[in-house]
Amino acid sequence: MKKYALGLDYGTNSCRSLIVDLEDGTELASCVFNYPSGEMGICVDPREPNLARQNPQDYIDGFVAITSGALEQARQARSGFNPHDIVGIGIDTTGSTPMPVNRDGTPLSLLPEFSDNLDARAWLWKDHTSHAEAAEITALASKIRPDYLAKCGGTYSSEWFWSKVLHCKRVAPAVFKAAYSFVECCDWIPAVLAGSTKPEAILRSVCAAGHKAMYNAQWGGLPDKAFLSKLDPDLAGLRDRLYAKAVPSDQLAGRLSKEWADKLGLKAGTAIAVGAFDAHMGGVGAGIKEGTLVKILGTSTCDMMVIQNNKPLTDIPGVCGIVDGSILPGFFGIEAGQSAVGDIFLWFVHHLVPNEYGRNADTRFKKLGKMAKLQKPGEHGLLALDWNNGNRTILVDVRLSGLLLGQTLHTEAHEIYRALIEATAFGALTIIKRIEEYGVPVQDIVNCGGLAQKNKLLMQIYADVTGRPMKVSSSDQTCALGAAIFGAVAAGKETSGYGTVGEAQKVMCHTKKQYKPVPENHEIYRQMYRLYREIHDAFGTTGWSGKLNNVMKDLIALREKQRMSR
Amino acid sequence: MKKYALGLDYGTNSCRSLIVDLEDGTELASCVFNYPSGEMGICVDPREPNLARQNPQDYIDGFVAITSGALEQARQARSGFNPHDIVGIGIDTTGSTPMPVNRDGTPLSLLPEFSDNLDARAWLWKDHTSHAEAAEITALASKIRPDYLAKCGGTYSSEWFWSKVLHCKRVAPAVFKAAYSFVECCDWIPAVLAGSTKPEAILRSVCAAGHKAMYNAQWGGLPDKAFLSKLDPDLAGLRDRLYAKAVPSDQLAGRLSKEWADKLGLKAGTAIAVGAFDAHMGGVGAGIKEGTLVKILGTSTCDMMVIQNNKPLTDIPGVCGIVDGSILPGFFGIEAGQSAVGDIFLWFVHHLVPNEYGRNADTRFKKLGKMAKLQKPGEHGLLALDWNNGNRTILVDVRLSGLLLGQTLHTEAHEIYRALIEATAFGALTIIKRIEEYGVPVQDIVNCGGLAQKNKLLMQIYADVTGRPMKVSSSDQTCALGAAIFGAVAAGKETSGYGTVGEAQKVMCHTKKQYKPVPENHEIYRQMYRLYREIHDAFGTTGWSGKLNNVMKDLIALREKQRMSR
Repeated sequence: MKKYALGLDYGTNSCRSLIVDLEDGTELASCVFNYPSGEMGICVDPREPNLARQNPQDYIDGFVAITSGALEQARQARSGFNPHDIVGIGIDTTGSTPMPVNRDGTPLSLLPEFSDNLDARAWLWKDHTSHAEAAEITALASKIRPDYLAKCGGTYSSEWFWSKVLHCKRVAPAVFKAAYSFVECCDWIPAVLAGSTKPEAILRSVCAAGHKAMYNAQWGGLPDKAFLSKLDPDLAGLRDRLYAKAVPSDQLAGRLSKEWADKLGLKAGTAIAVGAFDAHMGGVGAGIKEGTLVKILGTSTCDMMVIQNNKPLTDIPGVCGIVDGSILPGFFGIEAGQSAVGDIFLWFVHHLVPNEYGRNADTRFKKLGKMAKLQKPGEHGLLALDWNNGNRTILVDVRLSGLLLGQTLHTEAHEIYRALIEATAFGALTIIKRIEEYGVPVQDIVNCGGLAQKNKLLMQIYADVTGRPMKVSSSDQTCALGAAIFGAVAAGKETSGYGTVGEAQKVMCHTKKQYKPVPENHEIYRQMYRLYREIHDAFGTTGWSGKLNNVMKDLIALREKQRMSR
Repeated sequence: MKKYALGLDYGTNSCRSLIVDLEDGTELASCVFNYPSGEMGICVDPREPNLARQNPQDYIDGFVAITSGALEQARQARSGFNPHDIVGIGIDTTGSTPMPVNRDGTPLSLLPEFSDNLDARAWLWKDHTSHAEAAEITALASKIRPDYLAKCGGTYSSEWFWSKVLHCKRVAPAVFKAAYSFVECCDWIPAVLAGSTKPEAILRSVCAAGHKAMYNAQWGGLPDKAFLSKLDPDLAGLRDRLYAKAVPSDQLAGRLSKEWADKLGLKAGTAIAVGAFDAHMGGVGAGIKEGTLVKILGTSTCDMMVIQNNKPLTDIPGVCGIVDGSILPGFFGIEAGQSAVGDIFLWFVHHLVPNEYGRNADTRFKKLGKMAKLQKPGEHGLLALDWNNGNRTILVDVRLSGLLLGQTLHTEAHEIYRALIEATAFGALTIIKRIEEYGVPVQDIVNCGGLAQKNKLLMQIYADVTGRPMKVSSSDQTCALGAAIFGAVAAGKETSGYGTVGEAQKVMCHTKKQYKPVPENHEIYRQMYRLYREIHDAFGTTGWSGKLNNVMKDLIALREKQRMSR
């Protein structure tokens, strides 16, 4: 008898499903649903550009659509496919995406009295309305609870749980008052499928709790009441109605309710894994293990590592989060990232590339890439910083901006494009160096996400800049694949054949391609990285002081050397 | 009887003539000739992007074309116009543009054996092949002849006479050997018109000699033989075949030969003024006098001041040159400049502006300007350095490059365009501040050149950045007008009515428009200039050391403040 798992991946604009064959990881069927609410699924407020909310109804409608769609596709792809052979379901979502809910766990926005209230909806990860509250939390914690900050890179973000809840209290007191509790999207969807959404009963993801809500077993779970009440006494009260414990995703969140099973033709009682964030499950789907750095390369990037939780691990300054079990059970999950990668290229191609390169973004990217590829490293004489959207790791500072230097009267768009790719590669190398400096060796790098799959020039530059081979995951849906793996593991070894995530990864996660560093390119990039690091530290840190008058001259000398060597 | 003067202005890509009525400065006729050789008049070498030469034949063909063209136009414009009423001819050219010549003063490239040899042609001002020689001359002079450097801003340039001659000796020994002497373009053309080109007989321009060939009466003319022979013994030998004395342009270079007079219908014996560089004669045409800064705004800029030569004047570090009589006889001419201004905008519009702004450079400039004008100072959050072609004043360093910072994921082309204009304005302010620091007050600023005439946004930004009114010259051909004025003065008061340049300027030079600084804009730009100056000093000077981590944050704060105030 065949065995399958269903992975559900809830993203920013859409959700998608994946049915995988547990025997070898074959991806049998997949289906996408674009959220119908707002602009591409994001509810916005023209007066407040920082606001980004989602409609929880889209999550439910999406579940029905992508599950039935994938089942239909699987039936066509494989005769004899039986939906009852799906033994486990895993779910990942964006985060932190908290929702105010009532005592039943129903999102307030699904109640008639709050249906038009944007503050009653899901506060999407990229909602930045809470920047003042984030600064306030950072300031308070650095004063009285420095431990809290040390685990999240030194700065609490406006994208995270407590900033959003506190901002809700302040700007929408009626919503806050009506909210019995707040639930993360990744905890709520498994609860819905299990038919039991009462806040007290929901099993919470340690990934969401640990990375975004300052949850840590070290200090007994969520931040203590004394701390919270200094922010607002009502937060201390809310703490009692949140959760005491959070767990990894190999745990069972619940079992599929008869109602949903009947509606979709699945088997009632099917295992549902505890949810987690998309990037973290993507790391699992890409085959993360000790020594392996997984990079998810998209509009922004997420970099993940794991290290056994019985090994000593100090906090790593500037790295967003270190949470026990957030990626793999039994391991510390280390999360870092770049605030903008693909987004920088999209900005450039939409705003600064003339039509000679093509009439639309696709053709422009193709021509830019083709021409940039003909250049040797350093030949353009340029150096850029990848900070157009701030710097997440290792500076944790949104109040930074982009920089480009070295341009002459002859600099062309494809040269700048190459410099921008290199800037993101230097940013990636800075993260690797920081993680290794703190005792976590990076032996292997697996890349996934759209850019890894599509942009060969970028991957080669990453290999040349870092001096390390860049592997690319075979699956282009590593998040859903990771979710499916957790579904299988949560179902238990007897049911799915897999007792641990590691066992499943060995069978189901592969890389398909490897970009090898070219030694002479790496040598040039080593020199350029030194210059990048000077600029990085000069503009990004308070500790730096020194001289920069060598930078332009060194770049010109490198440019001349590289042109001469043609 | 009417009296006229003919001004001939030899530029980089073309030459042009101007016939002015000496009674009131009315510009009667003008004619342009585009040099046919090379690419837009510049002979290049695909293997050596620093190389830029001109074909001396173009100067002669150009003279015939623009003189006869202007005469024809004048006849049509004014009935009864008589070419014999032209009482003086003045000539300006680019420079330093030296040519190797034979004993007769014939440029080697006009001889059959050298006709294909680029090294035998005129070495155009913007030829940078001699950068190594320039560095060598600077190093030697700073060691044994610091005085030589002090008069040219502290650094000898690859654009200047001795760098080029020394480079010629090294890369083209056959040309150097065949060259009896080297003559500047601005000295050669008057000699050709006077029919006497023997090197010993040519009256040399103190403008060219003083600004580019280290000529100074203080040390007895050209650099001494001991100094030159340390560079190359053959340069010491060449010194004897150059010149002992150089003079201002109110002096007579010679009188129009019968041959040319007959050919063109002019009067034989017409006065020909000693030549000078285009910018310097442009300064005169714009009405330069003590206290008045003249800015010629084109692809690059030239900033000029004069101060009476009996006043004490210390050397001004970083200012390209201070030469007695180079602009006005009896005054020190002070020359500074920015290596690229219009060229930066041209680069940007050709390489980095998408078609949404227009299909060609003209329409793009129009739309960019229109949109940039709607922005408040600081609203784009950007800061740029105007160094895409190096920095002439006050850093005197070609090995610098452009820089742009502050870009986000939303930055648009017209915002960058505005930031680039501002960068050139900050560069202009840096020059003004330096000149004033050394005791030369700037009471008045007159702008001329294409950008001053055409770009209102730029002129307003210059006024707002500097906090000073920007006047614009009435003439859009100040170089040719200045040349005509010198032609008239060289002819003598009895012939032309003008005994001094000042007398002629009072009648013939006017301003037509004035841009006044807006105080609240100036206040913002004062803050931005502080940031510009930090970046300027950090990347451009060896003496700077400090911190830069405030720069991006200050710009973001300014951006937020300016957007909020809408």
